[in-house]
Amino acid sequence: MEKKYLYTLGLFFCLVFSAHAQQHPNILITKGKVEAIRQGIEQYPLLKTSYLEIVQQADAALAAPINVPVPKDGGGGVTHEQHKKNYTSIYNCGIAYQVSGDKKYVNYVRDILLDYASKYEKWPLHPAKKDQEPGRIFWQSLNDFVWQVYTIQGYDMVYDALAVKDRQQIEKHLFKPIMQFFTVDCKKTLDWIHNHGTWCLAAVGMTGYVLNQPEYVQMALKGSKKDGKTGYMVQLDELFSPDGYYAEGPYYQRYAMLPFIILAKTINNYQPELKIFDYRDKILSKAINTTLQTTYTNGFFFPVNDAIKDKSFESPEIVLGVNIAYADIAAEPELLDVAQRQKKVTISDGGLAVSKDIAEGKAKPFKYISAWFRDGAKGDQGGLGVLRYGANEDQQCIVLKAASQGMGHGHFDRLNILYYDNNTEIFPDYGAARFINIESKGGGGYLKENNTWAKQTVAHNTLVVDRASHFNGKLKGAEQTASQIAGFKNTPEVQYLYAKENKAYEGVALSRLVGLVTIPELDKPLLVDIFQAQSDKEHHYDLPFWYKGHIVASSFPIKANTAELRPLGTDNGYQHIWNTAEVQLKENAGFISVLNNYRFYTTYFIHDLPLKINLARTGANDPNMNLTQANAFIQSVQGKGVTTFINLTETHGKVDPVSETVTSAKPSITDLAIQKDSDTKFRLTFLAEGKQHQLYIDLNANDNIIKIQ
Amino acid sequence: MEKKYLYTLGLFFCLVFSAHAQQHPNILITKGKVEAIRQGIEQYPLLKTSYLEIVQQADAALAAPINVPVPKDGGGGVTHEQHKKNYTSIYNCGIAYQVSGDKKYVNYVRDILLDYASKYEKWPLHPAKKDQEPGRIFWQSLNDFVWQVYTIQGYDMVYDALAVKDRQQIEKHLFKPIMQFFTVDCKKTLDWIHNHGTWCLAAVGMTGYVLNQPEYVQMALKGSKKDGKTGYMVQLDELFSPDGYYAEGPYYQRYAMLPFIILAKTINNYQPELKIFDYRDKILSKAINTTLQTTYTNGFFFPVNDAIKDKSFESPEIVLGVNIAYADIAAEPELLDVAQRQKKVTISDGGLAVSKDIAEGKAKPFKYISAWFRDGAKGDQGGLGVLRYGANEDQQCIVLKAASQGMGHGHFDRLNILYYDNNTEIFPDYGAARFINIESKGGGGYLKENNTWAKQTVAHNTLVVDRASHFNGKLKGAEQTASQIAGFKNTPEVQYLYAKENKAYEGVALSRLVGLVTIPELDKPLLVDIFQAQSDKEHHYDLPFWYKGHIVASSFPIKANTAELRPLGTDNGYQHIWNTAEVQLKENAGFISVLNNYRFYTTYFIHDLPLKINLARTGANDPNMNLTQANAFIQSVQGKGVTTFINLTETHGKVDPVSETVTSAKPSITDLAIQKDSDTKFRLTFLAEGKQHQLYIDLNANDNIIKIQ
Repeated sequence: MEKKYLYTLGLFFCLVFSAHAQQHPNILITKGKVEAIRQGIEQYPLLKTSYLEIVQQADAALAAPINVPVPKDGGGGVTHEQHKKNYTSIYNCGIAYQVSGDKKYVNYVRDILLDYASKYEKWPLHPAKKDQEPGRIFWQSLNDFVWQVYTIQGYDMVYDALAVKDRQQIEKHLFKPIMQFFTVDCKKTLDWIHNHGTWCLAAVGMTGYVLNQPEYVQMALKGSKKDGKTGYMVQLDELFSPDGYYAEGPYYQRYAMLPFIILAKTINNYQPELKIFDYRDKILSKAINTTLQTTYTNGFFFPVNDAIKDKSFESPEIVLGVNIAYADIAAEPELLDVAQRQKKVTISDGGLAVSKDIAEGKAKPFKYISAWFRDGAKGDQGGLGVLRYGANEDQQCIVLKAASQGMGHGHFDRLNILYYDNNTEIFPDYGAARFINIESKGGGGYLKENNTWAKQTVAHNTLVVDRASHFNGKLKGAEQTASQIAGFKNTPEVQYLYAKENKAYEGVALSRLVGLVTIPELDKPLLVDIFQAQSDKEHHYDLPFWYKGHIVASSFPIKANTAELRPLGTDNGYQHIWNTAEVQLKENAGFISVLNNYRFYTTYFIHDLPLKINLARTGANDPNMNLTQANAFIQSVQGKGVTTFINLTETHGKVDPVSETVTSAKPSITDLAIQKDSDTKFRLTFLAEGKQHQLYIDLNANDNIIKIQ
Repeated sequence: MEKKYLYTLGLFFCLVFSAHAQQHPNILITKGKVEAIRQGIEQYPLLKTSYLEIVQQADAALAAPINVPVPKDGGGGVTHEQHKKNYTSIYNCGIAYQVSGDKKYVNYVRDILLDYASKYEKWPLHPAKKDQEPGRIFWQSLNDFVWQVYTIQGYDMVYDALAVKDRQQIEKHLFKPIMQFFTVDCKKTLDWIHNHGTWCLAAVGMTGYVLNQPEYVQMALKGSKKDGKTGYMVQLDELFSPDGYYAEGPYYQRYAMLPFIILAKTINNYQPELKIFDYRDKILSKAINTTLQTTYTNGFFFPVNDAIKDKSFESPEIVLGVNIAYADIAAEPELLDVAQRQKKVTISDGGLAVSKDIAEGKAKPFKYISAWFRDGAKGDQGGLGVLRYGANEDQQCIVLKAASQGMGHGHFDRLNILYYDNNTEIFPDYGAARFINIESKGGGGYLKENNTWAKQTVAHNTLVVDRASHFNGKLKGAEQTASQIAGFKNTPEVQYLYAKENKAYEGVALSRLVGLVTIPELDKPLLVDIFQAQSDKEHHYDLPFWYKGHIVASSFPIKANTAELRPLGTDNGYQHIWNTAEVQLKENAGFISVLNNYRFYTTYFIHDLPLKINLARTGANDPNMNLTQANAFIQSVQGKGVTTFINLTETHGKVDPVSETVTSAKPSITDLAIQKDSDTKFRLTFLAEGKQHQLYIDLNANDNIIKIQ
């Protein structure tokens, strides 16, 4: 059906630009809505504060001299930041003009674009180019595409107010050579099914619509050869899974969404008959929703893969996504909750609708769900699993990563888990080793330690076999397979995710079950985590739990190394870990309690085999101090056949620093034991506040793996 | 004059209890205001939410069975927390009864107090007693005093509704033996000029008033012998400096304030003619104000000495202090700002006044000031200096500790500085090594590392001579002297604090000048820090800067230790520091840039002598992992005569994670140089954004030490 749809779409193209009169502006703000937006700014607080911020920035731009420097610096450098600032100023002045009608904003956009037009053609490829495809304004072409996506919108907003000769000058000496550069020099990227490609074709397509150049629109939608083998529609087919999940993970999905959405909105304005928002069973709506579902309740994206950890749904891409999803796709009142927490709307038709309905009290709390978000264009490449429990104000959340590799930004962390609670990270993911835009730290790009540490398996909360990383840390092998989703349940008493990974290590089959199980005596559901490895040969297994907070109790004496610290290993990330303590347990069971954000997290473990615990801290073999501080406890065994790691994490108690009271500092669970029927069927028994409980685990019972008995 | 006042006070005592009829309640809520408080709860949002919280807790208490366990556990343990909970419940139910008139709350207070009355006399000294004077309900008598301060208020609030026989039972078998215990067994504490003493006499005095027992009131005000040589009035004379500063420091001042204030309020209600709030030139008002002035704008107290770092002015002591200061001393609208940020008022006459005036829009921003807060009863024991610059929303703040030792909770950190900016710590103080109320961490008390680390000089941002702590870490020597205030200025362009310390090390005179100097090219005033040591003999000097954040740039290559970490020393705190890097500088000048909370802090330094930089991290010789993570750069030289450390810290730039932009990541200052006229007169020259600046320093020019030229 999708193929057919695409074909129909093709038919339209010859008609488009004769049948539809051009009007300006016609992207986020459409001409017919300008007056309503002006009135809305008076009436709706969110629209007003958002506009005031824009106009303040626009005025600041007007107050400074126009500065179009010769491109020179890499990411974060002076010319880099100036050109970023310029496109923002062009965009902001466009909005300020539409709302205020004040020509001074038009003059600014005119002057700066004429300045660019007088220089652009002289600029060669950027001198700070690296491995990536270079731009001419920026060190990578990606930034040039982004520049154009914003600039063409600013241009569209002042178009009607510009003199014809100025438009000609700008189009001829700036936009035309830019389009030439994007569609010819950067053709490979335009045709690349990848987020860099999306930015390229959004820039090309939007410019095509605004300048009334159907040629560019066709290239954007159907690829440089206009044959439909690449381009936007193929990207919509291939870059998202049927659940709207983007293979690189939430951080990159956030970034990738913007060109998808804004081009869709542009298409919808110029060619509403294409019903682009309905395409592929509303894939764009699903993608926006999945972007939101892959945040924790504090708004931060699950930082799997090469993620910068301080990115939240407040980022402009998601503000735009929410506004368009609400206004153009489906006016779900839960989206208004997100918009309220973003504290911002776009000054646009969508922003008007959102701020109006918020002012009218229509918002409802956003509904976070427990689900597998399947990966892969066909949904068969595993997925990202999420369990949630509790109100948005204080929610437990588990993430199980059992997806595809996620291309070059992927980490070697199959079956990795993240645990959140109480609005903070409990078992975090390190994210990327990068100080984005900080030039003094590796030019603001990915640091060497991103490969030697952040991508390595031991940097994650998942099993390391024989101290090697999954797929030996090689992208090629990793890209050929994905983990498999093997179970899911979502009831008030029991929720779980179950997944398998058979290729990360040759000859070792891995599986992980994570669940949230309600035990009446406990403050919050118990995090059940069962990790199995199966192999004919004997292996060394390490299971790290990177934790936030401070260890305050343990069932065994910890004797941290006092006189010297040494790295835990020599490679695969182990070289970056200081071995702060090592304990060979006398009993193969025990617990560790961590205090984090005024709450306690006690992880109980039990094993068949002699169990060793290492406490670990990042920082070894890091001469440039590129690593941030992280702490872990690592469980290790040596085993053959089926090896099972059982970890139950109890979330308990409260420290109130204001009243200086502590409740339930001691964990409730005792006497954890395991009774095996077989390797895949066993009972976990324990006392909670002295009361006996039993969990019956049957790993082969797809819909009923965890039973409370 | 104070002596005379005290004498006059003595005369009143014989008259008091015949002339003044008893009424109940008559402490925070007075009988005549009950109806107004009831109405206020309907009208004023802050009073309403505060009351709803109280009544919710009262209802929770009613819903649970009464539990008066035999005292057994230490701080944070089960019986400890239960008895704390009980006095809170008694207090809350008293309030709930006064507001609602519902007898169920009276019945709860009656039943629990009768329960205590049936048991208390059988309880011996607490079994978990340690070094401190033991209580009978708690492991230390201090907690027993606190218990009584709250309980007597709850009793006062239900007094009129209790049957006479119940009152007799409670007074005879609970309060009378408690008073016996406090005034006889704990007599030493009652007469101790110390915050434990304050709690004791507040409990005794308030109980005396409520039970109409002038005997106890006299003991509270004039000491156990009623001779005026100890007791409350002497405490008011001696525990606060003329500026209202309390020698143990802000964290303990907060704690000590509550009994001072609540006893004063009780005295004022029963004996308004004593004008207690006017005593010693309004010393209580000054003390409350100084408590607020020794917080940063985020509300957290400057954590000098044995401070728990998560204490802010939201703590109940300060809520009460602000309410009483506003209602009973002076209705300053700036106090309403604090009350708003506390998000809470006491359900009381004072809370009514505060919430009413907030509702009427009378609040004004709290005025933080730059000042020396003198220490010592006579104000001659040095002081705590504070410099502030900028709006409350984004304020730079420097603290210079040049006070007395602050008794047993004092740290050996003469001339220590703390730097705050952007609502966070930049150069922090470690505070205490303690997990308060976490029983698994040393019973919730001070950890061994509080002595071996937190109190040691090297744990602070001040000069360490020959790797020994001030006064060799001995309290006795330290208590005999204080630092000296030696200069102060507060103009918009130049602010500074100057102080001297001549006794911390034998034969070495120390002085430190810290200032904030406005340089037009810089984003924010420059932190100027000049530390001098003078000695006839050669010494090794270490000047640590404990910093928050991550080092992102430096003028010299840092090669962190990659293969092993070793402690920096063997004692005086050095044994707890991992030496992460060591660099002998080629030039005796340079800079280090730290990124912290999305802003940059670049510290430039210059020296006459060969300069070594160590990078350091806590954690060595810490087998129980009692230390939290902290990082420092330490400047070291070997010198004789006058040795001068010059450090200029520039606060610059911004990282915006939402828009992914970075501004002014590179510092503005270059070419720092020094030209000496003499050891005490010299010029610092530097370029800021290429423009030449000169600071002329004359350390002997008291009112004009820093001149911008």
